[in-house]
Amino acid sequence: MDVKTHDLLCEALPGAFGDVYLAQENRPEGMDFFNMVVADIHGIRPQELVDFQKEGGKVVGSFCIHVPDEVVIAAGAIATGLCSGSQFWVPDGEKFLPTATCPLIKASLGARFGKTCPFFRICDLFVGETTCDGKKKAWEILAEDAPMHIMDIPQMKRPQDFEKWACEIKGYIKKLEELTGNTVTPESLKKAIEIVNNKRKALQRLNNFRKLENIPISGKDVLLIHQIAFYDDPTRFVTMVNKLCDELETRKKQNVSVFKKGTKRILLTGTPLSIPNWKIHHIIETTGGAVVCEEMCTGIRYCEALVDETGTTIDEMVNNLTKRYLGHINCACFTPNKERIDDIIRLAKEYKADGVIDLNLKFCNIYDTEGYFVEKVLREHNIPCLGIETDYTDEDAEQLKTRIGAFIEMLR
Amino acid sequence: MDVKTHDLLCEALPGAFGDVYLAQENRPEGMDFFNMVVADIHGIRPQELVDFQKEGGKVVGSFCIHVPDEVVIAAGAIATGLCSGSQFWVPDGEKFLPTATCPLIKASLGARFGKTCPFFRICDLFVGETTCDGKKKAWEILAEDAPMHIMDIPQMKRPQDFEKWACEIKGYIKKLEELTGNTVTPESLKKAIEIVNNKRKALQRLNNFRKLENIPISGKDVLLIHQIAFYDDPTRFVTMVNKLCDELETRKKQNVSVFKKGTKRILLTGTPLSIPNWKIHHIIETTGGAVVCEEMCTGIRYCEALVDETGTTIDEMVNNLTKRYLGHINCACFTPNKERIDDIIRLAKEYKADGVIDLNLKFCNIYDTEGYFVEKVLREHNIPCLGIETDYTDEDAEQLKTRIGAFIEMLR
Repeated sequence: MDVKTHDLLCEALPGAFGDVYLAQENRPEGMDFFNMVVADIHGIRPQELVDFQKEGGKVVGSFCIHVPDEVVIAAGAIATGLCSGSQFWVPDGEKFLPTATCPLIKASLGARFGKTCPFFRICDLFVGETTCDGKKKAWEILAEDAPMHIMDIPQMKRPQDFEKWACEIKGYIKKLEELTGNTVTPESLKKAIEIVNNKRKALQRLNNFRKLENIPISGKDVLLIHQIAFYDDPTRFVTMVNKLCDELETRKKQNVSVFKKGTKRILLTGTPLSIPNWKIHHIIETTGGAVVCEEMCTGIRYCEALVDETGTTIDEMVNNLTKRYLGHINCACFTPNKERIDDIIRLAKEYKADGVIDLNLKFCNIYDTEGYFVEKVLREHNIPCLGIETDYTDEDAEQLKTRIGAFIEMLR
Repeated sequence: MDVKTHDLLCEALPGAFGDVYLAQENRPEGMDFFNMVVADIHGIRPQELVDFQKEGGKVVGSFCIHVPDEVVIAAGAIATGLCSGSQFWVPDGEKFLPTATCPLIKASLGARFGKTCPFFRICDLFVGETTCDGKKKAWEILAEDAPMHIMDIPQMKRPQDFEKWACEIKGYIKKLEELTGNTVTPESLKKAIEIVNNKRKALQRLNNFRKLENIPISGKDVLLIHQIAFYDDPTRFVTMVNKLCDELETRKKQNVSVFKKGTKRILLTGTPLSIPNWKIHHIIETTGGAVVCEEMCTGIRYCEALVDETGTTIDEMVNNLTKRYLGHINCACFTPNKERIDDIIRLAKEYKADGVIDLNLKFCNIYDTEGYFVEKVLREHNIPCLGIETDYTDEDAEQLKTRIGAFIEMLR
């Protein structure tokens, strides 16, 4: 670790968190746990991981919601997300990657090479995938410094592609068995599927409160919880989310809303928002809007579909994982990807969105190009849509406030 | 066709061709044929294709050297390349695609949607592939206007990936059989493999002259011939290239060089140079350099490896095509892609390059990222390297002249 540089990050984060999060009015008390997790993001959880390693456990980091955590858990290892959401890491990433690479990828490599993120130091294995050009090629550079395993994700969703992805999951199981020395058994995989499904169910329960007319929790709080889902202990996480949901249940009965009457309901779609990327939510929710749903990897795409729990053999369970992880995640990396457009329309109705903001991280070509269809179909459905491109800097914050503010004002 | 707009292109092309090509001194007479092909690029060949269609024939256009022309020929159809190399088509492409997309892809879509390229009007089928994010997603938009078939190229080269690509080639055969009403037989496929191999052999023969100390033909002439290889009739093309090579054989005996003594030998590597993109060759060859080899799709990657001709069944021949088309094309779309770096080092030696220019079309993330390894390994081999990023405009021409000129001057 480069402790001195890392300290700069630790000094900046509480200020940013205070401005964006703690300044909110009428937050649920159940957010206290998540506040604490963020406040000590590079303390508590990393320590747990290191303690686990001291007992002989292995920690596996990944960058994409197509990579099944179930397999890691079934092998007795701990899975953690690694995508990076801060400009802090971008300059170190740009030493190795083209500037015209999306900030998420640059920050991820920067976090490793700059030695300024404990998660990137702790992991025993880094799992990359071939979802997009930027990631696929970045893993080659990361592999010079870190132990990598690559999963080749099909670019289409035909029957043969499901077979191929099942094969990749089996290869991943083998890799993890080698890493941990443990065997993935039908019992351990079944249990792992339940653990991760419970996480999804808790998040689904949480998201359902956002469908209410009176929304008892802010969009940015829900975003934060999704972000924490990627690296917190899954069982503790489920407990804390359900505890929060119990509180929201009471709020629901009392028609409590954290938003003023007339606040416009925004569905956010597009590229992922990794921690601590709260920029767009903060802008939307301080200019008359409420984010009611994220059709994103850090949102609905992460938790919406469950893995079928009825499998009893490894083969059956791998097939069930394949169906969920290939069939039900509609990332713009697929061609064609009409299912995502259908999702957006469906979610806009379910969450009663007044408008959609199609968000693109700069230089993410796949989501940017797919925006053509997103905007076209939303127009056909008479749902107002604003396309936005941004990165991790704050340079465009004022301009975005103006654009997003004007968009929200225009919504009836 | 938008004839009026197309006329503007036809007016501009002869001027550009005259400046870049006809102004060269001591060109081989065998270039006359290729001059004529370019001079009437939207006349002679398109007319041949239309005449073929009138007799019931089908024309199949593709965008990538991973797509095997052999299959098209075996089905009794005509294969033509479609990648576009002119800024002329870019603005029409930008109406549909993000600005931050490589100019080749933007120009290709622009050529179709702007109705200003006869090849893009004539084709009965457009074959896309998932080589890069930009192309993969662009085909979805092209499919709104044109009949498309997509081949999903594996992103890696493990044994299972070869099986997968063989499966894609078989799917392509089926598609072409449906399109043409013809059956691909072992005989027709064998014959087609020979036809395309002959094209490769002729180009290999041509490229070999560039290994000589006295180079009897300019790099830009060889580039032009590679570009024409993508769309001319293969049998005629082979005859004309061999005729030219006979002339070069005489030049070889007489130690004729088209370059002055002391001209520096440049290996060009990177993204493809589609017709009429002659910009970098022209700059290099007017600032003291000679391009001796292109480690590019429009170069060595297109012609270096032959398909094994010993197969007798369709399965054997498909396997041989797979080995060649997946195994021997080292595009930056693969991960890892060490073979390309090995190729560059090998070719630099074979062609006695004094230096390497690593060329990247703007917003091509895969080649740009791989440049990290290209430059690193060249440094390790003490081979001077210049990384350049450019697009189809002429805006950076003066700046490139300065940079390339300085690089060439620096070479000993």
